[in-house]
Amino acid sequence: MNNPVFVLAPDSFKESMTAKEVCIAMEKGIRKALPQAVCLHVPMADGGEGTVQSLVDATDGKIYHTTVTGPLGSPVTADYGILGDGETGAIEMASASGIHLVTKETKNPLITTTYGTGELIKACLDKGVKKIIIGIGGSATNDGGAGMAQALGVNLLDTNGRPLPFGGGSLGTLATVAVDHIDPRLKETQIFVASDVTNPLCGEKGASRVFGPQKGATPEMVETLDANLFHYAEVVKEQLGKNIKDVPGSGAAGGLGAGLLAFTNAQLKSGIDLVMEYTGLEQKVKEADFVLTGEGGIDFQTQYGKTPYGVAQAAKKYGKTVIVVAGYVGENIDVLYDKGVDAIFGIVPRAMTIEDALTSGQQNIEITCENIARLLSITL
Amino acid sequence: MNNPVFVLAPDSFKESMTAKEVCIAMEKGIRKALPQAVCLHVPMADGGEGTVQSLVDATDGKIYHTTVTGPLGSPVTADYGILGDGETGAIEMASASGIHLVTKETKNPLITTTYGTGELIKACLDKGVKKIIIGIGGSATNDGGAGMAQALGVNLLDTNGRPLPFGGGSLGTLATVAVDHIDPRLKETQIFVASDVTNPLCGEKGASRVFGPQKGATPEMVETLDANLFHYAEVVKEQLGKNIKDVPGSGAAGGLGAGLLAFTNAQLKSGIDLVMEYTGLEQKVKEADFVLTGEGGIDFQTQYGKTPYGVAQAAKKYGKTVIVVAGYVGENIDVLYDKGVDAIFGIVPRAMTIEDALTSGQQNIEITCENIARLLSITL
Repeated sequence: MNNPVFVLAPDSFKESMTAKEVCIAMEKGIRKALPQAVCLHVPMADGGEGTVQSLVDATDGKIYHTTVTGPLGSPVTADYGILGDGETGAIEMASASGIHLVTKETKNPLITTTYGTGELIKACLDKGVKKIIIGIGGSATNDGGAGMAQALGVNLLDTNGRPLPFGGGSLGTLATVAVDHIDPRLKETQIFVASDVTNPLCGEKGASRVFGPQKGATPEMVETLDANLFHYAEVVKEQLGKNIKDVPGSGAAGGLGAGLLAFTNAQLKSGIDLVMEYTGLEQKVKEADFVLTGEGGIDFQTQYGKTPYGVAQAAKKYGKTVIVVAGYVGENIDVLYDKGVDAIFGIVPRAMTIEDALTSGQQNIEITCENIARLLSITL
Repeated sequence: MNNPVFVLAPDSFKESMTAKEVCIAMEKGIRKALPQAVCLHVPMADGGEGTVQSLVDATDGKIYHTTVTGPLGSPVTADYGILGDGETGAIEMASASGIHLVTKETKNPLITTTYGTGELIKACLDKGVKKIIIGIGGSATNDGGAGMAQALGVNLLDTNGRPLPFGGGSLGTLATVAVDHIDPRLKETQIFVASDVTNPLCGEKGASRVFGPQKGATPEMVETLDANLFHYAEVVKEQLGKNIKDVPGSGAAGGLGAGLLAFTNAQLKSGIDLVMEYTGLEQKVKEADFVLTGEGGIDFQTQYGKTPYGVAQAAKKYGKTVIVVAGYVGENIDVLYDKGVDAIFGIVPRAMTIEDALTSGQQNIEITCENIARLLSITL
């Protein structure tokens, strides 16, 4: 094996490095040990934070910044991406409507809106895309995607024919859903919702009960929000003939999943599967001698659709050696050994603060990957 | 390679695990990945803290506890070991005369004595040993080994024929060195001083100037101590015909090196070389497929005679793969790759406090070695 091929397919290391930066640090380390190594960079993501960046980086696409309506109605700067194919947009709903955009004091799912997410979809449509990938983690909202729909031209009116104000709190007064002014380009556009959440819109496992509290909902608010989403689903069913109430995943992102199903050609898909598809990971894995992946933190939950799990599953199909690196190696990682992961290494070189670990991430990745490559070199 | 042989030759992880405990944790991890692996435990040391424990553990010897005179004259409990061969004693001078036995306030090299170290030598002689290995790091003393000599029957008298009081401060009044009552067993006993210090007894690079301040010597004290050691060496030369002043290493442990050279059949030797010899490391390395070593902390200074360096050098002779694990991986470890080290892995799984790193050492060693073995298993 003169020129061993390494596929480098890490997620971002949150608060430390983008996935692309991780790839660069990995290659730097590997090539110190194996100068002849061929390193294929496939920045990865699982639909969560960093998905747009990784999809853009992996496909040589472009990030755009734009001003949209934040969750509380005031303007925020949000990003979206156009992939290298020129016809696929990528959005993280959190960029426009995320929980990080509200403070502890202003968290209030009665009034927070997904309007800005709708504006991001519109921005993608303006670039002429045919497909949009939407990562929907980290929302501040519980509006069933109503704001998103409004931004795209859907009229949501009360009994007096007045437009509903923003937020899940007003959905109880919804009387009319009119889609005659909806952005016509949506008809021709395929939307892939990257989500591993399977919760339905309403009820015990619904958006309001399960995710409402972390968005600031009191127990009373939860009841209101759940009842409102139920009413919203009833009106949509009655007037558009679409059942969104019980679809698994419709409860994702405060019901944004349901809203996308109601008003767009949306499919809910596993985030990691979507990213693997759009980055062409599997094709590259076939060529690999070794596959390196990783994420800021790993633990037993990594097996539930996180990037290192997805990459390991893809690599296992072809019998490739998979090595995971992580800044935080948590408990019970043994389960990953049955999921295609061959070995796991922490990158933190010594006892240190989280701040120091985050700022020294690139150096730590580099040194760890150098030593992994040094060890692998005995096999070559 | 059906039953790969791992030689496990770590130093202790200071304040966390003895070398033997490290071996056990290493094996536990390796055998999780490679149940058929054969693990040879060779607890190592380099003459510093943990040397007695490792020599005893490696040779199936025994540790003894005894009460001796501490550096300040009050009794302390100290340890010594008798190796598995039954004829070799092992001592760490710090156990009887170490800096950890004085407080910041009571540090005073004018009065601290190596008397207890002499008592430990005597305790070994009482067990019938033919050889004694003495690790001499971490001393609280600057008495040129005068106290040690007194404990073994040497009379150090002033001009009035009165015995000198303890400590480097009184050596200036030395008039007579009488060895007629010295323990006669010393003649038949070979003493190996495990030390990597090459400082002479006196002068610019002498014991007092270089090591005195860390033992509590003020600049004035340093002058007194250096002059006193000079006088002491002169008297020894005059009356015993032995030159101890300029011998490299005579300045080790506040001049204990010089005292041992003056009054016993002592040889100064590299600590790691001594330990390798007495643990039979090299013979075991020959049988190894892989050699694992490690230490609590490694950095570029590891190349100056520390255990991982010594083990790597021994293993390199036979072309073996050497892997180092450490709790603290410091700067510029690259130099070790040229010294026989193949790969280095930190064991700390995430950002954490030093306290947590120290208490979770065994688990961290186990997990890291498991993953190293998982990676090595592709070569098997």
